[in-house]
Amino acid sequence: MTATVEPTEKTELPSVWMQDLTWEEVEGYLAHDDIAIIPVGATEQHGPAGPLGVDSYVAITLAEDTAQRAGVLCTPPVWFGDSSHHGGFPGTISIRTETQIALMRDICRSLVKHGFRKIILVNGHKGSNLPGLVSSVRGLHEDEAPQAIFAVADPLHLARSAAPRIKDTREHHAGELELSHIHHRFPGLIRTERLTDAGVDFQEVFGGFVGDDLFGPAPDGVEIMWSGAEQRAFTPTGSFSSSLGLSDQKGKDYHEHIVGRLVELVEWLRGYTGPLGTVVPEPR
Amino acid sequence: MTATVEPTEKTELPSVWMQDLTWEEVEGYLAHDDIAIIPVGATEQHGPAGPLGVDSYVAITLAEDTAQRAGVLCTPPVWFGDSSHHGGFPGTISIRTETQIALMRDICRSLVKHGFRKIILVNGHKGSNLPGLVSSVRGLHEDEAPQAIFAVADPLHLARSAAPRIKDTREHHAGELELSHIHHRFPGLIRTERLTDAGVDFQEVFGGFVGDDLFGPAPDGVEIMWSGAEQRAFTPTGSFSSSLGLSDQKGKDYHEHIVGRLVELVEWLRGYTGPLGTVVPEPR
Amino acid sequence: MTATVEPTEKTELPSVWMQDLTWEEVEGYLAHDDIAIIPVGATEQHGPAGPLGVDSYVAITLAEDTAQRAGVLCTPPVWFGDSSHHGGFPGTISIRTETQIALMRDICRSLVKHGFRKIILVNGHKGSNLPGLVSSVRGLHEDEAPQAIFAVADPLHLARSAAPRIKDTREHHAGELELSHIHHRFPGLIRTERLTDAGVDFQEVFGGFVGDDLFGPAPDGVEIMWSGAEQRAFTPTGSFSSSLGLSDQKGKDYHEHIVGRLVELVEWLRGYTGPLGTVVPEPR
Amino acid sequence: MTATVEPTEKTELPSVWMQDLTWEEVEGYLAHDDIAIIPVGATEQHGPAGPLGVDSYVAITLAEDTAQRAGVLCTPPVWFGDSSHHGGFPGTISIRTETQIALMRDICRSLVKHGFRKIILVNGHKGSNLPGLVSSVRGLHEDEAPQAIFAVADPLHLARSAAPRIKDTREHHAGELELSHIHHRFPGLIRTERLTDAGVDFQEVFGGFVGDDLFGPAPDGVEIMWSGAEQRAFTPTGSFSSSLGLSDQKGKDYHEHIVGRLVELVEWLRGYTGPLGTVVPEPR
Amino acid sequence: MTATVEPTEKTELPSVWMQDLTWEEVEGYLAHDDIAIIPVGATEQHGPAGPLGVDSYVAITLAEDTAQRAGVLCTPPVWFGDSSHHGGFPGTISIRTETQIALMRDICRSLVKHGFRKIILVNGHKGSNLPGLVSSVRGLHEDEAPQAIFAVADPLHLARSAAPRIKDTREHHAGELELSHIHHRFPGLIRTERLTDAGVDFQEVFGGFVGDDLFGPAPDGVEIMWSGAEQRAFTPTGSFSSSLGLSDQKGKDYHEHIVGRLVELVEWLRGYTGPLGTVVPEPR
Amino acid sequence: MTATVEPTEKTELPSVWMQDLTWEEVEGYLAHDDIAIIPVGATEQHGPAGPLGVDSYVAITLAEDTAQRAGVLCTPPVWFGDSSHHGGFPGTISIRTETQIALMRDICRSLVKHGFRKIILVNGHKGSNLPGLVSSVRGLHEDEAPQAIFAVADPLHLARSAAPRIKDTREHHAGELELSHIHHRFPGLIRTERLTDAGVDFQEVFGGFVGDDLFGPAPDGVEIMWSGAEQRAFTPTGSFSSSLGLSDQKGKDYHEHIVGRLVELVEWLRGYTGPLGTVVPEPR
Repeated sequence: MTATVEPTEKTELPSVWMQDLTWEEVEGYLAHDDIAIIPVGATEQHGPAGPLGVDSYVAITLAEDTAQRAGVLCTPPVWFGDSSHHGGFPGTISIRTETQIALMRDICRSLVKHGFRKIILVNGHKGSNLPGLVSSVRGLHEDEAPQAIFAVADPLHLARSAAPRIKDTREHHAGELELSHIHHRFPGLIRTERLTDAGVDFQEVFGGFVGDDLFGPAPDGVEIMWSGAEQRAFTPTGSFSSSLGLSDQKGKDYHEHIVGRLVELVEWLRGYTGPLGTVVPEPR
Repeated sequence: MTATVEPTEKTELPSVWMQDLTWEEVEGYLAHDDIAIIPVGATEQHGPAGPLGVDSYVAITLAEDTAQRAGVLCTPPVWFGDSSHHGGFPGTISIRTETQIALMRDICRSLVKHGFRKIILVNGHKGSNLPGLVSSVRGLHEDEAPQAIFAVADPLHLARSAAPRIKDTREHHAGELELSHIHHRFPGLIRTERLTDAGVDFQEVFGGFVGDDLFGPAPDGVEIMWSGAEQRAFTPTGSFSSSLGLSDQKGKDYHEHIVGRLVELVEWLRGYTGPLGTVVPEPR
Repeated sequence: MTATVEPTEKTELPSVWMQDLTWEEVEGYLAHDDIAIIPVGATEQHGPAGPLGVDSYVAITLAEDTAQRAGVLCTPPVWFGDSSHHGGFPGTISIRTETQIALMRDICRSLVKHGFRKIILVNGHKGSNLPGLVSSVRGLHEDEAPQAIFAVADPLHLARSAAPRIKDTREHHAGELELSHIHHRFPGLIRTERLTDAGVDFQEVFGGFVGDDLFGPAPDGVEIMWSGAEQRAFTPTGSFSSSLGLSDQKGKDYHEHIVGRLVELVEWLRGYTGPLGTVVPEPR
Repeated sequence: MTATVEPTEKTELPSVWMQDLTWEEVEGYLAHDDIAIIPVGATEQHGPAGPLGVDSYVAITLAEDTAQRAGVLCTPPVWFGDSSHHGGFPGTISIRTETQIALMRDICRSLVKHGFRKIILVNGHKGSNLPGLVSSVRGLHEDEAPQAIFAVADPLHLARSAAPRIKDTREHHAGELELSHIHHRFPGLIRTERLTDAGVDFQEVFGGFVGDDLFGPAPDGVEIMWSGAEQRAFTPTGSFSSSLGLSDQKGKDYHEHIVGRLVELVEWLRGYTGPLGTVVPEPR
Repeated sequence: MTATVEPTEKTELPSVWMQDLTWEEVEGYLAHDDIAIIPVGATEQHGPAGPLGVDSYVAITLAEDTAQRAGVLCTPPVWFGDSSHHGGFPGTISIRTETQIALMRDICRSLVKHGFRKIILVNGHKGSNLPGLVSSVRGLHEDEAPQAIFAVADPLHLARSAAPRIKDTREHHAGELELSHIHHRFPGLIRTERLTDAGVDFQEVFGGFVGDDLFGPAPDGVEIMWSGAEQRAFTPTGSFSSSLGLSDQKGKDYHEHIVGRLVELVEWLRGYTGPLGTVVPEPR
Repeated sequence: MTATVEPTEKTELPSVWMQDLTWEEVEGYLAHDDIAIIPVGATEQHGPAGPLGVDSYVAITLAEDTAQRAGVLCTPPVWFGDSSHHGGFPGTISIRTETQIALMRDICRSLVKHGFRKIILVNGHKGSNLPGLVSSVRGLHEDEAPQAIFAVADPLHLARSAAPRIKDTREHHAGELELSHIHHRFPGLIRTERLTDAGVDFQEVFGGFVGDDLFGPAPDGVEIMWSGAEQRAFTPTGSFSSSLGLSDQKGKDYHEHIVGRLVELVEWLRGYTGPLGTVVPEPR
């Protein structure tokens, strides 16, 4: 693991990563800007071809590229998420939702204390992290930090329009799109010789009540919980959908689309003047 | 408030509500069935025309009708949800996500202890309750109750196919569909003389990053938090979308669609034999 | 379950229940009054004749009638209480004391935020809920809400003078007085054909250290804990004292006495000017 | 503060206090007995004449004398209780109910782990500690320690029959009975020159809804919370009832009555064979 | 256990212990001073010769003597600490770190509320309590009590220079120095006939990675956790190092050295004017 | 930030980092080994010359090099620690001790679940993280994971013998040794033009009670807490000791010494057969 001193395109700072900056450099940044990105991932199985860090690498590369293009700062990444349902596979490391809520609140509280006022959580773990992330900043904003704006960003929503036209097959955990993304940004990390068309039979496991394509049409459905042990039973490889369609181009298209949208988000936030973040609640 | 002794259509029991049954009656039920429904709502502002209990009444009527048609039992309702973002309006009562997680875990734990094995949380509060509800039962299933199946059901997903064809305008908090639903099932509760076309200017408040129609096409977006005080600033009436199109028929169509799908869920669960709920994790 | 639009006798509002009012109606109420009642019950076994909701129905009817007569508002009810010691019987749903404390604090905090200043918790579950309820509001008042007055009301104390003259036999869990109360207010809910004289032999189970009559003379005693499993062993029916003496008149006398006293409490609070609720602690 | 090596009357051990015994001595005790007493007090104002430790000394002397006479062991005392409502007076040290619950559970869990099976919490702080103490052991017994019996003992209940005939005036916080007890057992601790007839006007502060005599007849009442700041406002001396009637004899009579009853409790527990403590709940 | 009315040498108060003072006396003290000492111990096995209360007695005597010589006040002692690793021996009572943090914060918060501004935690339990104690007051100082100074004092550090020259052999849990200290201050508490040279073979159990002398040279090491069950396996007597060298003189030298240094600490704090305790953080 | 596929010297795996491995590769590793290293750092100011990530980079490089040389695996790093006392400087991100305890327990629990039995936490944040880290794994080992061994490793202790001979001046936060270490391992990260001899006057701020050299002789002292705001007051640059003596050679000597010792720890653990990790506590 090497320190990465990535100059931003738009600032004088030697890196977009706070861990690579001194406090004086961050203080200088805060004199003219107040936006921070927090990459939040997970460490969990991603089938035979994907490394355990897929979700974290997704968050890291989206955060980093957005920050470089938009000229803002990132905090160090959070490598651990809510992954108990993948816990049947070795190497998966899961934190409880309560822990995640506390962790994210502490991180955000520190940022707000220093004067950051627009904070974007870039999630790389799709739906599984969202409950904790949303709960964390929703409560923080209501109770402690009315002066800051919090956004939770996820490829699941940011690539809503683009993903269907990029991918060839249905996309789910460890599918062609997710792995193409990593393959494009972190060449060598995907074990391409281990790509597989193994998937989960959603009809059998979940009736018709859970969609089998994260970017496809969804049934009139419900959310059904499954445990790590159950997951290993219904998908012995850990793959939820085929990854055979992996390609660098798909990863590039997907990445560029999301980063483009995130840059738009930063630009909008930069010029935003309210009402969010400007209404001070009356004392009780 | 009156006790409601509603005979089910399919069982001998005098009510589908556990609060109206004796322990012996529940014990008798458990001798041949193991499904329970928990209605979870909220107490929060629903504009000038909707009473504070809208979300709870939605959950209650969906649970009750499903239970009657499918011959299963309901627990008493949970009237309080995660509503801090509506807290700028008097009468809104919000519980923190952590409280909600603890509360739902305690309720479910009791049910599992008695032998219930398939538990459906019927949410009437749409997206705001989902983080807490999902977090609650996901962790419980992983850590304590591998033998039970938990589903979280919400109109937002169950009416996905039907809502667009029922409603006439975009639908959001306190919109025509939600209020029609209450109007149909609880005549007199909606103040029809106070229906309004007031709504939130999503473009102004959230840029183009948050969808303004819960059942319509969504942008490549993110989740942006807002506080109760901010909400009162950007929608002084509390209405997020027009409720002028309210009609009993819309409410009926919406209700029947969702109940129909919930009954299918119950039937599927009744015949379900795994893998969910049947895999016992190995000791560490 | 039907929505209940119960007009109060003293206000213009269409119901005493906040869930049936709009936020504008609650705001109007707060312009001239600041009292709220929270009914808190339980869902737990009440012997062969009593439904699981007895304690909640007790709280609901006391709150509702008091509110109607005194012209104040009620929040939706809390259906779940601290009932682990009844957990050996199917249908009992218990929440932990910590959960109850958090839940009640969240509810009360919301009320105080809106301007309610005199909050009455009407408990229907007797002694078992009191530790959690008292702990909840005592800490809230000290730490967060010095400007509000909190009272915890319970039939155990409110009927202290009247119960001994109304009842014929010793009264304990699922006894004649409790069931008469429900029988009077919710005709049809008590399975009168299942009334029983089964009871607990307090001498055998608890030595002479626990009183066997909630409204009778008590020994020089202690509190002894018992679990749900133990309870099922020492009272296989769940009945702690005879319910054979059930009568509508007893229920009526008991109910009227308690509601009368609660109305007096509301009147006293309405005119109360301190010192409670008026002393602002000095900053440390 | 000196270590107190108080030989019991009935065992060979050099002290009834575990802190003064070696682990081998406790192990020896556990070979033939399994009863432990935990004294729980408070550190809070007791008027001009009573030291801050009154409640703790009450618990300590009751536990110690009971242990000596009955031949059982005591743990070290817990000096801190739930005293926020006395917090307006310097020297009062209060712990939150949640802290108290956690603390007592940890202590009891350790005892159960070693083989103690009958555990008596002797409270010296009357009603204010009871919610936390009861909540603590009730949950522990249900969830973790079904094999142990827990009793919570308090002078308020143990002296129910005797107190009225011993005392001359109404008795409340820092009253003649409480201070006589300390005066008798810890001569010199009471500042007899500072005894006072200052008291709280319960009618004015609490209407007729709170009793003004802990051992006298009680009204049809409710529990009303008050803060430390409010208490200082309504009783500038901290005294709730006259202590002028203090006498050594009253203290002796009161002490002997309670200890006598506690010894009876120990003897009953020693011979107790169930059902409490012997019913193992079935796995869920 | 007897109340101890120990007059200080430097004040008019009848005792250094708050539990033995009235609130008026504490208020008088606070008119001219603002220092408090909190003795924190443990109840855990100390080998065949040491009673379970050794660590608490250490804290008590250090606190008491320091207070008397320096003219400051002590709170009642905390008898329970973080002792799970000794839990294999009967009589050991351990509280979890989270409980300890909550407990100490509550105690300190009360003191700060009354005006105490310099608070010394005197620990008698050496390294095992330090994580909880430091965590407790570090967070409290940062978040709630910037106006107060907190110090955590421990013989391990206070006797750093003196212990090596006083003791004859390596010193670890239940060693000659610790037991000599108790022997000197609480004659009769040590079972001198049970002194032992039994010890732990640190090389075998911990490799060369954990030092075997708390006051001797330490290896380039790490901290390795052990459980109560493991401890009983690797030291069946509970003794970690020889106690055969016990002597009153060693105890006296050790005690006087530590108390002397604590008195210097009090004197320094008394005259201290900042920066600690005087910097108010800017609002966020 | 780039993914780092660092082959170990002793295994066939393409990386020592689990995030870069697939679950199958981790499963393969667990077939013959059971050791894991968790690098734990902080994000906090390190003076004008050191980046905010210093402590995390220390943990990362120590963990990585140890893993490569000893042939074991690392989890992804934890970038956030207990840094509230540095919170006066922008960019410092602190998590509360309670959050840290929960986070580390969750991570370790996942590892134990998969079969890891010897877990080394490599801390890069010196004393400030130790309370949380030790508390976390001590409780986990006692209560949930008796079968695993946990070690907490820190440069403060691992370089005890070597640091004094490597460094030229006293070493404290952001001192010459810490920055040399980063300079050696991550060339370019230290702003060498901003090295400074600014330091903290420990005598003035802490009397003589806190040592000013982490690797030098320590006084008979205590731990004194300071807040982030206070720190900024007593060291406006954030530097606690001179960093002018920075050199690549010092960093190399320091690094090699610590890694060497960590490799010895791994080797010892690899061959370790008990008693730690092999004693199963008896059921209560």
